[in-house]
Amino acid sequence: MTTVSADLVRTLGEPSQEDLDRLDAWWRANNYLTIGQIYLKANPLLREPLSADHIKPRLLGHWGTSPGLSFIYAHVNRLIKHTGQEAIYLAGPGHGGPALVAAGYLEGTYTEHFPNITQDEGGILRLFRQFSSPGGIPSHVSVTTPGSIHEGGELGYVLVHAFGAVMDNPDLLAIAVVGDGEAETGPLEGSWKGISFINPERDGAVLPILHLNDGKISGPTVLGRKEPEQVRQLLQGHGYQVIEVTGDDLPGMHVRFAQALAEAYGAIKAKKSGDKSVAWPVIVLRSPKGWTGPHEVDGIVVEGTWRSHQVPLSGVRENPEHLKLLEKWLKSYRPEELFDATGAPSALVKDQSPEGNLRMSATPHANGGVLTRDLDMPDFRKYGIDVTKPGTQRAESTRKLGELMRDIYTSSPDRFRLFCPDETNSNRLGAVFEVSDRAFMERTTADDVKLGPNGRVMEVLSEHNCHGWLEGYNLTGRHGLFATYEAFAMVSASQTVQHGKWLQEAAHLPWRAKVPSLNILLTSTAWRNDHNGFSHQGPGLLQVVLNQRGNVARVYLPPDANTLLSVADHCFRSRSYVNLIVIDKQPQLQYLSMDEAIAHCERGAGIWDWAGTDDGETDPDIVLASAGDVVTMETVAAAQILKERLPNFKVRVVNVVNLMTLPRPKDHPHGMSDVQFTELFTDTVDVVFAFHGYPGAIHQLVHGRPDADRFRVRGFIEQGTTTTPFDMTVRNKTSRYHLVMDAINNAKRLPRGAADLKSWCESQLARHEQFVVENLEDMPEVRDWALPA
Amino acid sequence: MTTVSADLVRTLGEPSQEDLDRLDAWWRANNYLTIGQIYLKANPLLREPLSADHIKPRLLGHWGTSPGLSFIYAHVNRLIKHTGQEAIYLAGPGHGGPALVAAGYLEGTYTEHFPNITQDEGGILRLFRQFSSPGGIPSHVSVTTPGSIHEGGELGYVLVHAFGAVMDNPDLLAIAVVGDGEAETGPLEGSWKGISFINPERDGAVLPILHLNDGKISGPTVLGRKEPEQVRQLLQGHGYQVIEVTGDDLPGMHVRFAQALAEAYGAIKAKKSGDKSVAWPVIVLRSPKGWTGPHEVDGIVVEGTWRSHQVPLSGVRENPEHLKLLEKWLKSYRPEELFDATGAPSALVKDQSPEGNLRMSATPHANGGVLTRDLDMPDFRKYGIDVTKPGTQRAESTRKLGELMRDIYTSSPDRFRLFCPDETNSNRLGAVFEVSDRAFMERTTADDVKLGPNGRVMEVLSEHNCHGWLEGYNLTGRHGLFATYEAFAMVSASQTVQHGKWLQEAAHLPWRAKVPSLNILLTSTAWRNDHNGFSHQGPGLLQVVLNQRGNVARVYLPPDANTLLSVADHCFRSRSYVNLIVIDKQPQLQYLSMDEAIAHCERGAGIWDWAGTDDGETDPDIVLASAGDVVTMETVAAAQILKERLPNFKVRVVNVVNLMTLPRPKDHPHGMSDVQFTELFTDTVDVVFAFHGYPGAIHQLVHGRPDADRFRVRGFIEQGTTTTPFDMTVRNKTSRYHLVMDAINNAKRLPRGAADLKSWCESQLARHEQFVVENLEDMPEVRDWALPA
Repeated sequence: MTTVSADLVRTLGEPSQEDLDRLDAWWRANNYLTIGQIYLKANPLLREPLSADHIKPRLLGHWGTSPGLSFIYAHVNRLIKHTGQEAIYLAGPGHGGPALVAAGYLEGTYTEHFPNITQDEGGILRLFRQFSSPGGIPSHVSVTTPGSIHEGGELGYVLVHAFGAVMDNPDLLAIAVVGDGEAETGPLEGSWKGISFINPERDGAVLPILHLNDGKISGPTVLGRKEPEQVRQLLQGHGYQVIEVTGDDLPGMHVRFAQALAEAYGAIKAKKSGDKSVAWPVIVLRSPKGWTGPHEVDGIVVEGTWRSHQVPLSGVRENPEHLKLLEKWLKSYRPEELFDATGAPSALVKDQSPEGNLRMSATPHANGGVLTRDLDMPDFRKYGIDVTKPGTQRAESTRKLGELMRDIYTSSPDRFRLFCPDETNSNRLGAVFEVSDRAFMERTTADDVKLGPNGRVMEVLSEHNCHGWLEGYNLTGRHGLFATYEAFAMVSASQTVQHGKWLQEAAHLPWRAKVPSLNILLTSTAWRNDHNGFSHQGPGLLQVVLNQRGNVARVYLPPDANTLLSVADHCFRSRSYVNLIVIDKQPQLQYLSMDEAIAHCERGAGIWDWAGTDDGETDPDIVLASAGDVVTMETVAAAQILKERLPNFKVRVVNVVNLMTLPRPKDHPHGMSDVQFTELFTDTVDVVFAFHGYPGAIHQLVHGRPDADRFRVRGFIEQGTTTTPFDMTVRNKTSRYHLVMDAINNAKRLPRGAADLKSWCESQLARHEQFVVENLEDMPEVRDWALPA
Repeated sequence: MTTVSADLVRTLGEPSQEDLDRLDAWWRANNYLTIGQIYLKANPLLREPLSADHIKPRLLGHWGTSPGLSFIYAHVNRLIKHTGQEAIYLAGPGHGGPALVAAGYLEGTYTEHFPNITQDEGGILRLFRQFSSPGGIPSHVSVTTPGSIHEGGELGYVLVHAFGAVMDNPDLLAIAVVGDGEAETGPLEGSWKGISFINPERDGAVLPILHLNDGKISGPTVLGRKEPEQVRQLLQGHGYQVIEVTGDDLPGMHVRFAQALAEAYGAIKAKKSGDKSVAWPVIVLRSPKGWTGPHEVDGIVVEGTWRSHQVPLSGVRENPEHLKLLEKWLKSYRPEELFDATGAPSALVKDQSPEGNLRMSATPHANGGVLTRDLDMPDFRKYGIDVTKPGTQRAESTRKLGELMRDIYTSSPDRFRLFCPDETNSNRLGAVFEVSDRAFMERTTADDVKLGPNGRVMEVLSEHNCHGWLEGYNLTGRHGLFATYEAFAMVSASQTVQHGKWLQEAAHLPWRAKVPSLNILLTSTAWRNDHNGFSHQGPGLLQVVLNQRGNVARVYLPPDANTLLSVADHCFRSRSYVNLIVIDKQPQLQYLSMDEAIAHCERGAGIWDWAGTDDGETDPDIVLASAGDVVTMETVAAAQILKERLPNFKVRVVNVVNLMTLPRPKDHPHGMSDVQFTELFTDTVDVVFAFHGYPGAIHQLVHGRPDADRFRVRGFIEQGTTTTPFDMTVRNKTSRYHLVMDAINNAKRLPRGAADLKSWCESQLARHEQFVVENLEDMPEVRDWALPA
């Protein structure tokens, strides 16, 4: 952003009569198109008297918030035209979808993306008919809405998306409209603090506009009914300066809002030019819900109340009086001034729109894939661990990922960030602090470490903020990773779901360019939580991602450092996926050399010959499979026990690093072919599968594979407490001893000595139990376990 | 609560020297026991010089927040002793577990519940050894902590639990300590507004204590670094009066905190006696993190910084200097004054504890099952729909549930509430408004409907608040239901998980009495969303609950009103389950008479003879099964098509209302026996199963059943948009036409005419496609479909 002169602020704040006329015309046009979408299936420009035949059979959509949204949009357009400011518009009250669709239409963007929605009467009719109709578009802002990076379905994320969008985007202004319904959600309330992490010199600016129109679906909102003084205090407490606009008078509201916007813009410019005495502005706009709509219907006040939330006149087809009211309402916008003879927006309306990419519906920031530049990826091989013999050395695998990310911070300093709820160090990713502080705009002290305004590692104790910021960062074309506790990833599971849905939908729209993938790293897993208890043990997010569509869902369970590096490299280069990576942060056994790891990750699953005893035979006695680090350790240990104690028993060991290789190719694009599947798992031999997550996930994934019933899955069965990783495997029947017993129980050929081995396993488990009863660490052979030399 | 005199407030606010001595002694004892839990495995009372042998092999736990938590606890105890006030203590910074465990121990409650943790030196040693040890207790407050209804694992819910606990609990004071780390989470920030819904005359009081000690794991917090004026504004903006206590000086802090607590208590009492000029109080306590711990270690300041978050002296076993520091630190509390010769707490310490149930660690409100009274349940049969012929009439099933709940509100006016994000009416549950308003303490206007301070229907646009309030209400022994959008139930999925974990753990503790179940109703389901789009379509929570342990997880999919009533009656009477009920709110076909519905729900799954054509034969040609309302309609329709067009084809129709009857009895207590399973599904006939949720769930549930591979499951495969319910079934391949084709494709015996029928199905789907392309409503035979007379 360039600096802004006091003159410009004054000009912006004092709209001329011509300005006012244009503002109002654009707003009227937008309101007209909004109402048309809700009501009309014919006669779109009211060029004949309105009749019941012109009305849609079902009236669906949301009028209440729409006039406020388009009022703001019109004024921001004026700001853009005066200043050339790049801006993006995020509509928190997302059920004002028709208003944003109308804006895209008036700006021409809608027609550019959807050529059948032409700029004429026929196009307008198609625009109306597709709204809230089968196979059409939803009543809320969605992926199909040009200019949007923010779905208006699930409420609460408008500010996190806005803050994420402006990080490292110094020239961008994000207009974030917060509805007073949305303002009641936890995620939204937790997101005002974004300004405590935004550096005005390096980042862009978010201008929140809190739109208090008093009502939700069926009642008032808390903030809508608080005294203005309390609302001011609340926002000042978050660190904002509050600019208020209240009323419903016209053109007075236009004048006052123009002044407010000018004032806010001046403050943002001052702040960005380094003036530390200025606080970030927020505008509180109090205007009636359903503004300019029918004030009273059937003797009951509608405008300004929750009754205007959806369809204020609901009986239009049956009730001639309602029909008359609708016609009068539509005509109050004087459509004849707004659309020319062909039905295209008139010059009066069009003049109000900025040009080209400055149109908010066309901003490339809202279609971030077009701005995305690949990361300058360091060669991940150089961070690898030198593994000469599998299972003989331990390392903290995520530490290597930290080193890789440190160098990405350096090589791509303008487009990569790590987001993590205050656990970067705890997750062994701390190498990033060698090159970047944590971002923090509040006061710092001499005791603080790696913290300050220039920091770009994002730590805030809020999964919602971390996740949402990364989404905003991704959707505007930049790369990152969200690292968090496995169990507490469920806090933001809904965001993972919604972002996945966004990506799934975007894949159907050719004009939406692919964006960097949403990368989620889960450490501190269910299997290893030390002092934490059962509440910290839950592999739930894995199951959530599994159920997303195959063109988006990716789940990786690297068992060691080299596989993690290979997986991470792939994820950082990928586009438009949800990549879930699950790996423990504690010292863990290393298995594969870098070359082996790369080959293993490329296949996604493979036989570990060195661990098994099947010597490449087609049909071993049993297949021991695993996915996940701790359970892989137990699987390798079980194979080792079997090798030592039942040397004639043929055991194949299979490891799965890319979980999505398990389903059939028709169920997931990564699904391995039938031939590959048979090569790994045979068609008939029983498979004892030790899995990181809930066992049902494997049953679900291998459904339809040959004789899927032969998969005996062990996994997390909701047994947990404060204990050692080994005890966790015992409680969940996934320990080496359980796996050995499972192998023996399920093998078709019962080898000599099998019964003795089962007894020995049971005695080992009994011995373990004694250790637990006495609150001791693990028994030595487990604690110090490694593959013998 | 009785009124409180100015004298009492003055007495409370002016502690005598004896008061101060006792406060301090109790606090010292608690701190001593806290540190002991973290460090010591021997020599618990330092009766010999401390050596490395006495130190635990791994040092785990959280010191930082603990002294603040016990400081507050000591002062509340003094308040209770002076006033007889019933109080419950919720520790938001839950990793201060050892402090709360120590409090329970000092009050004798711990020993009452865990008799091996005796009140002597041996008991103290066992208390220390079990902490953060394998098979012991976690380092955070947990289900095992007496006096807790609030797990200290996942952060953010301390205020919602507190507000839920005091609803309809007029005599209860909930002390809710909010950590400044937790204060960064969205759910916590969204929960301050609880006071906008608490009626001081009918409900109890929450006293939030915001503990600003500046640090999280590895850095400062936002609120910890804000100017006090900003923090005040923030809390005043939420509607509180702010009382501040700052410092680390002793006994000054004791005096000032006693004054603050007295002031807060006086305000609460005034408010409860009807004084509307008084605002609810909040105390902001600024004390150092790790207060009274080592100030400096190895030349680096620890006390008052994030460095004291966990274990401030980490090298005690290896570093003699650290060992010395630890000994000095422990001795600074003068344990010889605090424990008598046997090791029991001394009289000085014990005198500070209230008696019996007034001890916060023993309050029955924190073990709500002991206070639970069954609901006076109206006979649910009387709300039933008179169904004479299945599938011939439509009704909004949830409307009947609304009527049932209306009468529960009347019959059990002190112990039942409905919680819903502003959609009670939209969910057709509005009958409750005949007897109760919505709760709202903010300003109301003449245009408001069913809203005001006496309301007990809880509407707030926050799933986190709704869910958390109900949890607090349940755990203190009262009943309720949380109704929400199916897709947005994922917003609070983490709470569902955590509450489920709480119940799973509580089942192992004989002293924890069973509490009313957490009842969740999901309406506005994936299959029927009208104007909403893909973001509103997701059956994710169902999958989340499925993976909980069998002693807690319950999932019901009633297909019509009478089954819904029977299920709801069961859920409202049940204890300590998570009951998930999924049913659409729109007019839907009704199938079963009340008697049939009751029998069907008792079995959980059954054959619908009237819908099929197998005439009780052992092995039909195909089994068409379903679970969920829309897919059941499609299944019955498919059976009807087959009946009409392939009359010799033997079709069995099975409906599953209790999903947990599907797994084997060893996997879930509701799992039907092998015999029953075979009676319904045979052992060999292919089953086409139409499911409400993700298909994988059924594969997971029927694993291990005879030839489970024969289950061909159709369900939600993440295909959605704004469209009709029928089109949703087409997109997800669950339509009647798909099911007919599936039946034909999978039947072992291919009946004459089958090929023609398949062609007809395909032509029907092609015809449907045309309707969608033209944005029309459904084709008439689908829209008006009902079983022929």
